[in-house]
Amino acid sequence: MTQLEHAREGRITAEIKAVAANEDIAGSGLAAAVAAGQVVIPANRNHRNLRPIGIGKGLKTKINANIGTSADYPNLEDETRKMATVLDCGCDAVMDLSTGGDITAIRRALLAQATIPFGNVPVYEMMVDAPLRGVPFVSLTAADMLAYVRRQAEDGVDFMTVHAGLTLKAIDKLRKRPRVAGIVSRGGSMLTAWMLHNKRENPFFEHFDELLALAREYDVTLSLGDGLRPGALADGSDWAQLEELLTLGELVQRSRQAGVQVMVEGPGHLPLPQVEMNIRLQKEVCAGAPFYVLGPVVTDVAPGYDHITAAIGSAVAGAAGADFLCYVTPAEHLGLPAEGDVREGIMASRIAAHVADIAKGLPGALDWDRRMAAARRRLDWSAQEKLSLDPEKFKRVRERRSTRTAACSMCGDFCVYRVLENLGL
Amino acid sequence: MTQLEHAREGRITAEIKAVAANEDIAGSGLAAAVAAGQVVIPANRNHRNLRPIGIGKGLKTKINANIGTSADYPNLEDETRKMATVLDCGCDAVMDLSTGGDITAIRRALLAQATIPFGNVPVYEMMVDAPLRGVPFVSLTAADMLAYVRRQAEDGVDFMTVHAGLTLKAIDKLRKRPRVAGIVSRGGSMLTAWMLHNKRENPFFEHFDELLALAREYDVTLSLGDGLRPGALADGSDWAQLEELLTLGELVQRSRQAGVQVMVEGPGHLPLPQVEMNIRLQKEVCAGAPFYVLGPVVTDVAPGYDHITAAIGSAVAGAAGADFLCYVTPAEHLGLPAEGDVREGIMASRIAAHVADIAKGLPGALDWDRRMAAARRRLDWSAQEKLSLDPEKFKRVRERRSTRTAACSMCGDFCVYRVLENLGL
Repeated sequence: MTQLEHAREGRITAEIKAVAANEDIAGSGLAAAVAAGQVVIPANRNHRNLRPIGIGKGLKTKINANIGTSADYPNLEDETRKMATVLDCGCDAVMDLSTGGDITAIRRALLAQATIPFGNVPVYEMMVDAPLRGVPFVSLTAADMLAYVRRQAEDGVDFMTVHAGLTLKAIDKLRKRPRVAGIVSRGGSMLTAWMLHNKRENPFFEHFDELLALAREYDVTLSLGDGLRPGALADGSDWAQLEELLTLGELVQRSRQAGVQVMVEGPGHLPLPQVEMNIRLQKEVCAGAPFYVLGPVVTDVAPGYDHITAAIGSAVAGAAGADFLCYVTPAEHLGLPAEGDVREGIMASRIAAHVADIAKGLPGALDWDRRMAAARRRLDWSAQEKLSLDPEKFKRVRERRSTRTAACSMCGDFCVYRVLENLGL
Repeated sequence: MTQLEHAREGRITAEIKAVAANEDIAGSGLAAAVAAGQVVIPANRNHRNLRPIGIGKGLKTKINANIGTSADYPNLEDETRKMATVLDCGCDAVMDLSTGGDITAIRRALLAQATIPFGNVPVYEMMVDAPLRGVPFVSLTAADMLAYVRRQAEDGVDFMTVHAGLTLKAIDKLRKRPRVAGIVSRGGSMLTAWMLHNKRENPFFEHFDELLALAREYDVTLSLGDGLRPGALADGSDWAQLEELLTLGELVQRSRQAGVQVMVEGPGHLPLPQVEMNIRLQKEVCAGAPFYVLGPVVTDVAPGYDHITAAIGSAVAGAAGADFLCYVTPAEHLGLPAEGDVREGIMASRIAAHVADIAKGLPGALDWDRRMAAARRRLDWSAQEKLSLDPEKFKRVRERRSTRTAACSMCGDFCVYRVLENLGL
């Protein structure tokens, strides 16, 4: 039985209990939210050493870091170091998006290292591995694909991005209203190539019931991917995106009926004024399913700074109700992130999540800021360092711009807290 | 006569003409906006080599960088280099907030270097210089203070932050509803100290007409400072802030009546859901005066990353109608920014301004993103580099994470634009 099925029967599983304790909420309330499909707890029964987290309504906004090899950077060692950074930086979840080297071995090694929920995009292994076995991706059968998914589930993958809502009808919408940036989802592009080559419907859509049976068996949380997410501001909220979203709404219903935990993925690239609308729309169409957003980045013109463009979009998305934020690194649109990029991406994403938690009015969220402000007023630099999101960077910047005073090198003795000392203002 | 007075009489000055050309709008429409006080063109008649800019309704969102010495870092050379960075990075305006070394000499040197509008906070020179002459700041008379302002105006300062709305009544509000972070404006804290020591009203409030006469003489744009801006999320939109804002509304009216260009400054630190409200409120209370926001940062807990926390607040503020964004650097709350911090702050702020311009629906704003997306689709890396906000960083990251393919090192030959080549999607 899945967490969803247990919760429906009113059982408070060990995972629900752990999550409730972590979030400082009642287990019964959390179980009700899981039962309603408003919260998911990605926890594959085969993932050992997992500290489960909850994603969804009433819980802290969670963040995910994408790591994984590419053809240009196929080494497991690099990814092992990135995973250590991910864990060290307090990231809530991680996805292995490897597309270089031995995908299976890399997944198993990283999964063994991951104490946080571990996701993947099943199609990536297929597109890399099948050709090595002499089978072009477009020649894979639905059965072949499901066999890959089964092996990944067996390994312990907690959540999987499946682009099951990318249908022929949605591709038709794309043709009727062409895009500036076309399709930018890798999984989505592979499935589109398969569909156009075979002149058949998306195998994950056609065989969704089999996928559900498999997900249920291991309690894999499905993350319904947005293969047609806009990849440019100009394409935001267009017909193709909305056609896919409508299908995802149905697939959410079918997943829940099958007892499978499900969340939904969203854009991508969006102009800022479209962000809140997209979150509200998804929550309506998908009956409150947890929403997992990639960014969104709110301008296309700032490669090198997409951790910032995404932090803006993520903060606003989170404040509007998005539950799970996928980080974006400074390397986005330019190359595979290195370890330092991973760190920067996570910090920007943690900022967005906390800003969202304050906006959501989560109990205790603002207290952190209040404690920091109080320490600042006391000129208690050691408390400020401890309270800061990234104490290491706090220390580095402060030492680099050192002062001879009790304040900081910007104001020195003109610090407001020295000027107004003891005035009680 | 000031730009405002000229515009009222229907004259299209050289400055209005230059700004209109730059913004690609009609001079007559711009003159009307200047006449209505919805747009300011900070252009002191004594500032040579100034390329004027407009700030306000219907124009591109502008950004400002604060530079200047401190007691710990008093060298002009450092600031000269920062000024070069400010000009090089495409920043719209600059403020000299020097509080170390020979303030007068530093101002004159930086002003000579500045081809963009140059602002300052008059009180800073007073608080540093007066004690050197044996006069504690609290012993300065209103006449002394106005004499400082006159010298600064004579030097060519285009806009000045004056905390004239910080009244005894506002301090009373602060006592009735105490804050977590108290007063965090340096100018505001000095004036408060002066008021409490002398048991008298704010000299800039009491002598506001004299200040106006002086500003009119040189066409200095007044930037009505928010000495009581919240310095912690917990203090956002509190009584003291609102009391001061109400006074600023009156001072805007008096400035306009006197023919003096005026804009209004705003927070500071705010929870994200309060940002839009603050912009709308200021626009109402201050009859559409251009709004100059410092950040706002949307969490207190991320020192080291306050260029990001401010980019989030600035983007949302700009989208809601803020006209002028003051950058925040990674050194904020930790020390005086170095040259690299200045660069990072400007880039984050430029992102926020552009995101805001798209939200405001400014003609042409989204075209930039569209061109970038099209270049990305063509895998035209040289065009992408040229189109990017920071071509230097684009190049650096791309070279650091190099690829052997025509795409990038993240996807390589799995790039969506190679997978779906020639499918017209």
